[in-house]
Amino acid sequence: MNGNRFGRLFQVTTYGESHGPGMGVTVSGCPAGLELTEEDVQYELDRRKPGQSMITTSRGEPDEVTIQSGIQDGYTTGTPIGMTIENKDARSGKYEPFITAPRPSHGDYTYSAKFGTRNWGGGGRSSARETVNWVAAGAVAKKILRSQDIQVKAHVNQIGDVEAGDVTWEDMLEHAEENDVRCADPDAAAEMQELIEDYQEEGDSIGGSIYFEVRGLPRGLGSPRFDSFEARLGQALMSVPASTAFEFGLGTEAREYTGSERNEDWTFYEGEREEINAEEGDPIPVGNDHGGVQGGITTGQPVFGELTLHAPTSIPKTQTTADWETGEETEEQVIGRHDPVLPPRGVPVVEAMCRLVALDFLLLGGRLNPDRLDGDVGEYDTDYHPSNPRRE
Amino acid sequence: MNGNRFGRLFQVTTYGESHGPGMGVTVSGCPAGLELTEEDVQYELDRRKPGQSMITTSRGEPDEVTIQSGIQDGYTTGTPIGMTIENKDARSGKYEPFITAPRPSHGDYTYSAKFGTRNWGGGGRSSARETVNWVAAGAVAKKILRSQDIQVKAHVNQIGDVEAGDVTWEDMLEHAEENDVRCADPDAAAEMQELIEDYQEEGDSIGGSIYFEVRGLPRGLGSPRFDSFEARLGQALMSVPASTAFEFGLGTEAREYTGSERNEDWTFYEGEREEINAEEGDPIPVGNDHGGVQGGITTGQPVFGELTLHAPTSIPKTQTTADWETGEETEEQVIGRHDPVLPPRGVPVVEAMCRLVALDFLLLGGRLNPDRLDGDVGEYDTDYHPSNPRRE
Amino acid sequence: MNGNRFGRLFQVTTYGESHGPGMGVTVSGCPAGLELTEEDVQYELDRRKPGQSMITTSRGEPDEVTIQSGIQDGYTTGTPIGMTIENKDARSGKYEPFITAPRPSHGDYTYSAKFGTRNWGGGGRSSARETVNWVAAGAVAKKILRSQDIQVKAHVNQIGDVEAGDVTWEDMLEHAEENDVRCADPDAAAEMQELIEDYQEEGDSIGGSIYFEVRGLPRGLGSPRFDSFEARLGQALMSVPASTAFEFGLGTEAREYTGSERNEDWTFYEGEREEINAEEGDPIPVGNDHGGVQGGITTGQPVFGELTLHAPTSIPKTQTTADWETGEETEEQVIGRHDPVLPPRGVPVVEAMCRLVALDFLLLGGRLNPDRLDGDVGEYDTDYHPSNPRRE
Amino acid sequence: MNGNRFGRLFQVTTYGESHGPGMGVTVSGCPAGLELTEEDVQYELDRRKPGQSMITTSRGEPDEVTIQSGIQDGYTTGTPIGMTIENKDARSGKYEPFITAPRPSHGDYTYSAKFGTRNWGGGGRSSARETVNWVAAGAVAKKILRSQDIQVKAHVNQIGDVEAGDVTWEDMLEHAEENDVRCADPDAAAEMQELIEDYQEEGDSIGGSIYFEVRGLPRGLGSPRFDSFEARLGQALMSVPASTAFEFGLGTEAREYTGSERNEDWTFYEGEREEINAEEGDPIPVGNDHGGVQGGITTGQPVFGELTLHAPTSIPKTQTTADWETGEETEEQVIGRHDPVLPPRGVPVVEAMCRLVALDFLLLGGRLNPDRLDGDVGEYDTDYHPSNPRRE
Repeated sequence: MNGNRFGRLFQVTTYGESHGPGMGVTVSGCPAGLELTEEDVQYELDRRKPGQSMITTSRGEPDEVTIQSGIQDGYTTGTPIGMTIENKDARSGKYEPFITAPRPSHGDYTYSAKFGTRNWGGGGRSSARETVNWVAAGAVAKKILRSQDIQVKAHVNQIGDVEAGDVTWEDMLEHAEENDVRCADPDAAAEMQELIEDYQEEGDSIGGSIYFEVRGLPRGLGSPRFDSFEARLGQALMSVPASTAFEFGLGTEAREYTGSERNEDWTFYEGEREEINAEEGDPIPVGNDHGGVQGGITTGQPVFGELTLHAPTSIPKTQTTADWETGEETEEQVIGRHDPVLPPRGVPVVEAMCRLVALDFLLLGGRLNPDRLDGDVGEYDTDYHPSNPRRE
Repeated sequence: MNGNRFGRLFQVTTYGESHGPGMGVTVSGCPAGLELTEEDVQYELDRRKPGQSMITTSRGEPDEVTIQSGIQDGYTTGTPIGMTIENKDARSGKYEPFITAPRPSHGDYTYSAKFGTRNWGGGGRSSARETVNWVAAGAVAKKILRSQDIQVKAHVNQIGDVEAGDVTWEDMLEHAEENDVRCADPDAAAEMQELIEDYQEEGDSIGGSIYFEVRGLPRGLGSPRFDSFEARLGQALMSVPASTAFEFGLGTEAREYTGSERNEDWTFYEGEREEINAEEGDPIPVGNDHGGVQGGITTGQPVFGELTLHAPTSIPKTQTTADWETGEETEEQVIGRHDPVLPPRGVPVVEAMCRLVALDFLLLGGRLNPDRLDGDVGEYDTDYHPSNPRRE
Repeated sequence: MNGNRFGRLFQVTTYGESHGPGMGVTVSGCPAGLELTEEDVQYELDRRKPGQSMITTSRGEPDEVTIQSGIQDGYTTGTPIGMTIENKDARSGKYEPFITAPRPSHGDYTYSAKFGTRNWGGGGRSSARETVNWVAAGAVAKKILRSQDIQVKAHVNQIGDVEAGDVTWEDMLEHAEENDVRCADPDAAAEMQELIEDYQEEGDSIGGSIYFEVRGLPRGLGSPRFDSFEARLGQALMSVPASTAFEFGLGTEAREYTGSERNEDWTFYEGEREEINAEEGDPIPVGNDHGGVQGGITTGQPVFGELTLHAPTSIPKTQTTADWETGEETEEQVIGRHDPVLPPRGVPVVEAMCRLVALDFLLLGGRLNPDRLDGDVGEYDTDYHPSNPRRE
Repeated sequence: MNGNRFGRLFQVTTYGESHGPGMGVTVSGCPAGLELTEEDVQYELDRRKPGQSMITTSRGEPDEVTIQSGIQDGYTTGTPIGMTIENKDARSGKYEPFITAPRPSHGDYTYSAKFGTRNWGGGGRSSARETVNWVAAGAVAKKILRSQDIQVKAHVNQIGDVEAGDVTWEDMLEHAEENDVRCADPDAAAEMQELIEDYQEEGDSIGGSIYFEVRGLPRGLGSPRFDSFEARLGQALMSVPASTAFEFGLGTEAREYTGSERNEDWTFYEGEREEINAEEGDPIPVGNDHGGVQGGITTGQPVFGELTLHAPTSIPKTQTTADWETGEETEEQVIGRHDPVLPPRGVPVVEAMCRLVALDFLLLGGRLNPDRLDGDVGEYDTDYHPSNPRRE
């Protein structure tokens, strides 16, 4: 109801404003017996945090997480995990001019219209700072999913009119974290970086999109209709600040496919396509234009899609606003410290939301194997470690 | 959890399979005092029902609704409205070949994987027949919204590679129901019709998309983040069978817009744009690239977007399947009676889901004016009446 | 929100008014693979139905259920089970005098205050007729629980000042259904019967209470605090019409126990107490003053308690009301056909609600064994068949 | 699902263990525009906190709350209110002996059975320390309710076999906080105090009960059946640690009332009974045996009832346990610092839960008057200030 709760069995509840004392997230429904440390969470927070490169805001937030509950001797107990993150670099003062003069295309006016008031410092609750909570919760989900061999990876596949070329899963694992844009196609990444810097210099910003993929989901997750895998994933990703389109499988291209083109015959799995969660002899569709879901329920093939994010609305250009106190139209400039583009920091956010959805369905389907919770989660993450010295 | 419940304060619960005894929907949270008849519901069901034109399935379902509860002397009482619709033309027998040999790109296999069984007649629960319940519930929502001057209209804006031209709100009201495609651009509609018939003759089907618009929403509906207007609408529309992309406002095009292009200055409303729900002197954004929502909350401007639906997967072409009982790959032909394209019958479904979301937010925001519930809801619907003799 | 939904994973949604066209219930979350027939449901409905004895209302409702969905070849499919029950003996006319002159201690006035209107025929939605839906849903739950060796039984343990003597589980199974009062102590039952008939003759009614017990629950069901077993059971049973007290374990007597009296030492289970769900060598509390739950979570010992129901408020005595249309106080007589006492027909209702709670916790705990779903559910029910010829 | 969420529109989410780093609660759905300070919350926390008298545990927790979000310039903004409370006197070490040897009648064993592990320090999540979160959330609800003239008060009406005499609302306001027992009958309070001290000296503990009353509720709050006022209140209060019985209105005594005794004629309100929320000329029942609710919906008369709490299970007496590691029965003594009786500290907890329920219904019913939110909330609280020097 109130916009701060997500999930059905794996439940996330958040609080916090951009320039308030601190952010917090409570994760309920985490299975007991998972080894979990603050470092596990911090790792993902560091991927999202501001100031990690030249193309992110310079706000100086270390985003250090403290786990307040739900852990005993390094393992989860099944009771709620409370996590808190202090805001260290809050400077709400510079937003005072906007109290009654809404910034263009922000939530200033609508929040005030809804509530009759708002936390006006840096967008308050409407700020994307809230996603720090999502990433913290997603880090818990990630560790669980990894123990079940379910992997999520995203990368930036378009900035402005620069599109990434064809990219494999291995490319995403290997290259997405090597550059500041988080694009797994190094050539496109360089071009995107240049484009972003150009807009940044002009005092402007630019849109883009993120491709995501979930591998290892067992067959049979999801429910009919209102709780179909894609409906719940759609809600999750359309929650991401600045999202304007959620595509699933073929996405908007499906308009132009005929039934006979898009339909996929059935065959028997022979073990040759390791991205598929199936056993030899299981029926599988011959392709994956269906995006890993049929009838709202997973087929065992990868679930994939794209999320479009519009350009950041906080730009230093002078713009016109309408002050509802004075009744005057005035010029204003949003000074702040802002991102010129959202997808690079959006990658860990999208991954987090994909994980919350995947884990929730896994729990709802009764398909979590608790015996594997404390197993070795493998080397999958080595590719994530930031290679860019500016980020360290 | 189980895929048959939608809504938070205005709650819909459904049951029914394609070839079972009947369909049913319970609507809870309907305000008391609304004049409501079976005709109100029937009107919308008729727009969705099969057999209404040459480009819909010929299954003979009158889809007659019976209201079982929640009405006293022609007015709602605020208690649950139970509605039942008998299945009259169920013929599950012809689906027997597919019990263990899943039809390509249907939910046959995934349902069986999830549940270990399924209603195999015509897709059972996975059939789009379920949407008859949604349209019935949406008809109740429509009547309430109309009393509050909130209007929803959709039309088919693309079939295959045929796109509708620019279409106004008035065009949608006037022309969308004049042709079997439900496209508000008559020339494009003719072209689409031809295209569909071509595919139909070939034993194939084709994808397409639906444009929707919601007008009259007050400012301040929606919540931050997980319950943002677009996140909840995204879930609602990605529930529609065959949906592969949900676009909101600029949709996927937002990738290529800069911040300065997409950002909209603020000005004061002078009453000149009647699609805006505002009073003179209210601040409004100068345009509506924001899609009627900022920060997850409505601005009073129209909410609009698009939903892509892939081609129907039931096609008479011979296809290959894998029978999990025999372990053999076999040829099969889905005989049935099926739609060659989904958007034309999808229009009332999309409108219904938009209405469920809009009304839910209206109730959550405490913005329903009960005094207007029994008012005259105006002439808005006259344009809906089918003009095509084949549909009568 | 709207009072017609119960359950978290095993979800029940209802509609219907006392004198409307029909009642209906949708059960979502029922596991697939359960053999289920209309007879299974009918059996429980017959135990609740009116007219089954001299001490129940004479309203002539056969309460015949039709299953509309969710079954394939006699087994559940995991999709929603829609059930409908026609109202055959609706006679709302005789309630017309009460439209604006509320019956004493009914919901007439409060419904009108809340909704500004109401279904006035026989209490409409506020009538205990609604519980027919609960019993239908409970019958589905019963069959599942029985396959898991979880049993629920209730009996009437007090009517007016007549208390049943000490009664064993076996007494309840054997004797509760032998008499019209549904009291497992035959002597007390006779005394209760007499008392009820006395009040009935006087045109009055009387209160009473129901004892319930749930056996076979595995250890570890329930959650901390807000979702503790007793909190959810409390909500479930306080939903029963006319309930005024929910007691759990020692109930109100716990006030006078010291810690050392009520605390139970731990010992190891040696298999000697068959009411306990434990394996040899498991720690168990030496007694069961704790009511089968500690810290909100089941111990494997029986869960038991009592529900108090006040006297039926529909009595033929002349009473005074205040007509809000005329502004006059007037005498009125509730004619209708009513029960002189509630617990006898309340027994199947209480059992149904206990089952809904128990099954929901079983599913939430991931403790349902699907392999046993279609097993032989045994002879447990033979004692339920009505032995009283007036009931047949 | 997970036991740490309560409420539908006014939503509370909690975390924290008895001897972990800290406790926390997130309140979502609080209306904007309420003046709220940490002192408002602290006031209620002080009423609940340990060490406030000789008959409470001596654990030294200042229970200082920090508000992390949801406030701007001293007023709520409508966004989630995060509150954190550090645990200062955690000493989990002394619970080590009980890790595999469950304390009698605690949740040690059942938590371990459910989760396979647990926070074993002082009961961890099963500790009543969790209620500090509820009281913090309840303090927010209190301030809102007070602005709407809705008042909640509770007092201890029985300890062991000592019952309070008849006590008026004014007595509760005036006397309940004057003594350590929180009983509004000073003579009974003295007797209770003596009794408690006797048990305390013996190393034992004793049960008791709390009477609660809610005044000022408008007519028409609550919903039919599953969401009836009493069902939701029942769940709320049966969540309170150690609760064994929830009575509403006449409670268990209703068993012995006839219909004609309990039924209340209707009359017209003449303004003479100020505890009733009605206007002159409104129909009202002549008495309040109905407990302020009819048909699940409020009548405008006070809602009242009782909650029974069993004796604290942590007692210093030597008891027997069964160590599941060693397979040995052993003697053990729970040393810790514990309460000899629960109701005195339970009073603010019960009040908090009543407030959460009342406010939730008020919001659901659309009956909150936002214009009164920042009004003067009056002098009602002056009676709450602790008069006992030991508490200061």
